[in-house]
Amino acid sequence: MLKLFYAPGTCALASHIALEEAGASYEAVRLDFSRGDQRKPEYLKVNPKGRVPALITDRGILTETPAILVYIAQSFPAAKIAPIDDPFALAQAQAFNSYLCSTVHVAHAHRPRGSRWADDPGAIEAMKRKVPQNMTECFELIEREMFAGPWVLGERYSICDPYLFTVAGWLESDSVDVSRLPKTSAHRARMMARPAVAKVLEAHRG
Amino acid sequence: MLKLFYAPGTCALASHIALEEAGASYEAVRLDFSRGDQRKPEYLKVNPKGRVPALITDRGILTETPAILVYIAQSFPAAKIAPIDDPFALAQAQAFNSYLCSTVHVAHAHRPRGSRWADDPGAIEAMKRKVPQNMTECFELIEREMFAGPWVLGERYSICDPYLFTVAGWLESDSVDVSRLPKTSAHRARMMARPAVAKVLEAHRG
Repeated sequence: MLKLFYAPGTCALASHIALEEAGASYEAVRLDFSRGDQRKPEYLKVNPKGRVPALITDRGILTETPAILVYIAQSFPAAKIAPIDDPFALAQAQAFNSYLCSTVHVAHAHRPRGSRWADDPGAIEAMKRKVPQNMTECFELIEREMFAGPWVLGERYSICDPYLFTVAGWLESDSVDVSRLPKTSAHRARMMARPAVAKVLEAHRG
Repeated sequence: MLKLFYAPGTCALASHIALEEAGASYEAVRLDFSRGDQRKPEYLKVNPKGRVPALITDRGILTETPAILVYIAQSFPAAKIAPIDDPFALAQAQAFNSYLCSTVHVAHAHRPRGSRWADDPGAIEAMKRKVPQNMTECFELIEREMFAGPWVLGERYSICDPYLFTVAGWLESDSVDVSRLPKTSAHRARMMARPAVAKVLEAHRG
């Protein structure tokens, strides 16, 4: 059975929702980052990067949200949560997810995790100050250029939706004025109305 | 015909090599970042993110290296540059590429492009100082945990190889002691010996 390692508040939420939407049989294992679970030797054997998500499969361990999302879509094709039979459409989905992981998640991370990129406390504070502007610009670009609506790729719900939902969930703590992002806000409400999303959010709260 | 927009010194090198290895018919269009070509209205119509790579296809425009690499592999299956028929193996390849784009490329970017994440000149200098350490740690992790050898995924050359080659090409300018990275150095030499790689490098120098 698939086993997903996650921690509340992290991007592992996207993979967790995707497993639920796919109708997968899986076990979800919660790490407590406040206790440093992700740095314990036991977990570093699962993911030497010391991060989540990590997905244990019968073939081995997978990491990195974009990779896990496509893997789930390909493993549960009946759920139709990615255009896996159309290389161009799949590449569009992947481009969206890649933008989230390499640019938007990174823009956000400069608030809670600036110490990754500088040791000087003043520099870390300077990074935090720029996060609201960077996150606003990223989401304005998403709304203007990438979001087809009502779901990310258009009429069909896909693996891009839980990932956008996850990253958008950080906007308020990043001091972004979400009233300037109507498509993102409407997408958020649409996601919350899905039973799979409600179930996973409840687990993360618990 | 496929058209790839690239600039020398950027991660677009990976997609360029992949097109060449795939035996694709394509046109490569060079942007001059020193003239700000990537911010000109004409190019922003191609890629509103103002970055490279961008790949024009007969279906539309694709961006983001990991997405473009899988698209090339799926469009030219005879070249066998990705395990496209094995979801788990493809996910492993994607996890590697996702780590490069979201962690390693980002670690590097804090040297030339720190102004993305802070406005304060002192903070930008503090970011630059941490780049050698961060890039060293990323590549030590790659050598220890991810690199199967002789190619990234093992015996078979794949879309992970030009991407690793591209990012590894920044190590010396990031002041990393590459003598501490024997697998990366050997991979680099192995890549340089491939005709497709030599041809693309020559075009980027020209």
